[in-house]
Amino acid sequence: MRNIKVGVIGIGHMGRTYALQLDKGLIEGAVLTAVCGRNQQLADMKEQVTGNVQYYQDEDAFFQESGIDAVIIATPHFSHPELATKAFANGIHVLVEKPAGVYSKHVIEMNEAAEESGKVFSIMLNQRTNPLYQKLRELIHAGELGEIKRTNWVITDWYRSQSYYDLSSWRATWKGEGGGVLLNQAPHQLDLWQWITGLEIKRVHAFCHYGKYHDIEVEDDVTAYVEYGNGATGVFIASTGEAPGTNRFEIAGDRGKMVVENNALTFYKLAQSEREFNATYKGGFGMPESNRIDVPVDGNNPGHLGIIQNWIHAIVQGTPLLAPGEDGLHSVEIANAIYLSSWMNQSVDFPVNADLYYEKLQEKIRQSSK
Amino acid sequence: MRNIKVGVIGIGHMGRTYALQLDKGLIEGAVLTAVCGRNQQLADMKEQVTGNVQYYQDEDAFFQESGIDAVIIATPHFSHPELATKAFANGIHVLVEKPAGVYSKHVIEMNEAAEESGKVFSIMLNQRTNPLYQKLRELIHAGELGEIKRTNWVITDWYRSQSYYDLSSWRATWKGEGGGVLLNQAPHQLDLWQWITGLEIKRVHAFCHYGKYHDIEVEDDVTAYVEYGNGATGVFIASTGEAPGTNRFEIAGDRGKMVVENNALTFYKLAQSEREFNATYKGGFGMPESNRIDVPVDGNNPGHLGIIQNWIHAIVQGTPLLAPGEDGLHSVEIANAIYLSSWMNQSVDFPVNADLYYEKLQEKIRQSSK
Repeated sequence: MRNIKVGVIGIGHMGRTYALQLDKGLIEGAVLTAVCGRNQQLADMKEQVTGNVQYYQDEDAFFQESGIDAVIIATPHFSHPELATKAFANGIHVLVEKPAGVYSKHVIEMNEAAEESGKVFSIMLNQRTNPLYQKLRELIHAGELGEIKRTNWVITDWYRSQSYYDLSSWRATWKGEGGGVLLNQAPHQLDLWQWITGLEIKRVHAFCHYGKYHDIEVEDDVTAYVEYGNGATGVFIASTGEAPGTNRFEIAGDRGKMVVENNALTFYKLAQSEREFNATYKGGFGMPESNRIDVPVDGNNPGHLGIIQNWIHAIVQGTPLLAPGEDGLHSVEIANAIYLSSWMNQSVDFPVNADLYYEKLQEKIRQSSK
Repeated sequence: MRNIKVGVIGIGHMGRTYALQLDKGLIEGAVLTAVCGRNQQLADMKEQVTGNVQYYQDEDAFFQESGIDAVIIATPHFSHPELATKAFANGIHVLVEKPAGVYSKHVIEMNEAAEESGKVFSIMLNQRTNPLYQKLRELIHAGELGEIKRTNWVITDWYRSQSYYDLSSWRATWKGEGGGVLLNQAPHQLDLWQWITGLEIKRVHAFCHYGKYHDIEVEDDVTAYVEYGNGATGVFIASTGEAPGTNRFEIAGDRGKMVVENNALTFYKLAQSEREFNATYKGGFGMPESNRIDVPVDGNNPGHLGIIQNWIHAIVQGTPLLAPGEDGLHSVEIANAIYLSSWMNQSVDFPVNADLYYEKLQEKIRQSSK
C-alpha cells in the first residue's frame, strides 16, 4: 500500500516538529511531501528535511497543486476552521492543531464542512493518548463510579512567565489568540474534562481574571462552576500564574471517587451504592464502606505522535479516531461559555449562543490596545 | 486557687459529654456545679454525675441562682447569642458551641455584650486544636508562603444518611437549625479557612443545592467562590451527600503551595518568589525551582477538651484564647453570605448586610413546610 502524502501548513514550533517527524519516517504509512509557511521558516525547513518535499508560501497553491492526501494544520488558532474548510473542499484529510478554533460559530462551520467532505478529520488532543485518562474514562464509561455527582479539576501547573508572553506580539491578545489560558494551555483539560465523564454541561458560571499575573490583556486565572444535565456540579480552575501549581482531577460518583494526580489514578471504591445505602441505612452516623485501589495503568503515552499515527491509521485502514475533529468543538464551546459568563457577569446556558459570543469577541478585539 | 464553677446549659449529645468530662475532673482548675436542661435529660444526668451538681430546667434561675462562674452553652444554634448575652449580663464567662449563631445580626449583638461584660468568651472551634492546621497557620503567618494567590477547600467527607436527618424533626430545617451543611457540619472548615490565611473576604458567589441528596429543606451541597481583599481567589466545596468524600485544603502563594490532606501537611516550596522570577526571567518556558517538604507535625489533637481547658486557663491565668468567642462571627458571616448569594443568584459583598440576611431567613422559615 502506498504511503499517505502528508502536508503541513504552519511551520512554527509545533508544525515544524510534526513535519520533521514525518520526514524521519516516524509515522507508519505516511510521508511528508509538502509544507506551507513563511519564507524564513521554509528556508530553515529546507536545511533539515531529507525527503522530497515541495515548499509553498501560498496556501491555495499548497492545497490545490501539491497533490497531498492529508494535511496537518498548525497555524495560529483563528485560522484553523478556514484552512480546514479549504482542505476539505480539496478532498484532503485533516488533522488540526488544538484549539479547533477560537469561537464556536467558526468551528461548527468547519465541522459541517468535514461531514460533507467525508474525509478523515482529527484534532491534536494529544492528552487523550495518556493511558491514565484513558483508564479513567474506561472505568467511568463501564459504570464503575455509578452516576457522577461532582467533578473538580485544578489545573494550575501551566506556569508561564512574562518573558514567555513577550516572545511574540500576537500572544495572549484577543486579536492574535482570541484568549489566554483557556485557549492556549488548558484546552487539553477542558477536552478531557468533558470526554472522560461524557456529561453534558447545562450551565456555566465563571470568574476570569485578565492580566492578573502578567502584562497581558487576556485571562491568566479562571474559576468556572458548571452544572450538568444529570444534576452533578463541577469546578474547573486554571492559571498560568502559580508555581509549582496543581494538576488534580477528582470525580465523585455514587460508587466512590476517582482521583488523577501525580501521574497516578486512585479509586476509592464503595462496597455499595451510596444512594442505596442512604435509602436503607437506619443508624445515625454510618456511611458505606470504601476501599482504596491504586489502579494499575500500563502503557506509555505516545502523545502527539500517537494522534498523528491514529489519524493515518484511520485514513488507511479505518481505525476509529481517538480524537475525532468534531470533538474539538467541546472545549471551544466551554471556553466561550466561560468568557461570556465572565464578561456578562451571569450564568450562561448551553448550547452557547454562538452569534452572541462572536459579537462580544469582536468587541474585545476592537477595544484592544495591543 | 479555687476551682472555677462551671455550668452546662443544653445537655443533649455534646452538652452531656462536656458536663461529664468536667464532672470527671478532666479539666484542670474547673468543676461542674450546675446543669440546665429538659426534665428527662436531667434525670439521665443525675444517674451519671458523681459530684455535687445543681439541676435546673429554668434558664433564668440557672444563670441567676446557681452561682456558676462560667457556662458552656450547648443548646440549639439559634439560642446561642441570647443565652450568651444572658450569661454576660450575670457576670458569667462563656464558652459557646459552634456555630456562634445562625445569623450575623444576632452574633454581632452577642459579641457586643461580651465586650461590655469583660468576661472571658470562647467558642467550640475544636478543629483549631489540630496541630496540622496550627502548623499551617503558623507557616503562613510567618510569611513562608508569601502573598496568597488562591485557596481551595474540598470538604465533602461530612457524609450523612437520610436516617441521620430523620433522628429529630428540628434537624436540617430553616426553623430548627437555620441551615444545613454550612451551619451544622462545615462551620469548622469555614472558620479554619478564614483563620489560617487571615485573608479578608471581599465578595462571595455561591451555588447551594437544597435537599439534593436527602429529603431535607436546607442545603446539602455547596460550591462557593470568593475573592479576597488582596486579590486572591478561593473555592469552598462542601457536601453531606458524597462517600467517601474528600477533605483537602490547598493554598497557593507567591512562594509555593501548601496542602493538607490525609492528615499530612505538604509544602511545595519555591527557591525564589514567583513574582520576582516572573519579573526577571528571560527565557521561554522556565519556572521557579520547587522542592517538596513533608512538614513534620508533632503533638496530639486535644479537640473539645483542649478548647475547654484553654478557656479555663484564660479565665484563671489569662492564657490567650485559641478560639476567642468573637471569632465565631466569621464562619456565620461567610455562611450567611453564601446563602444570600444562592438565594439572590448574585454576588454578595462583605460585610454582609445583616438585616437583609435576617429578613430573608425569616422568609425561609415562614415558607417552610417542615
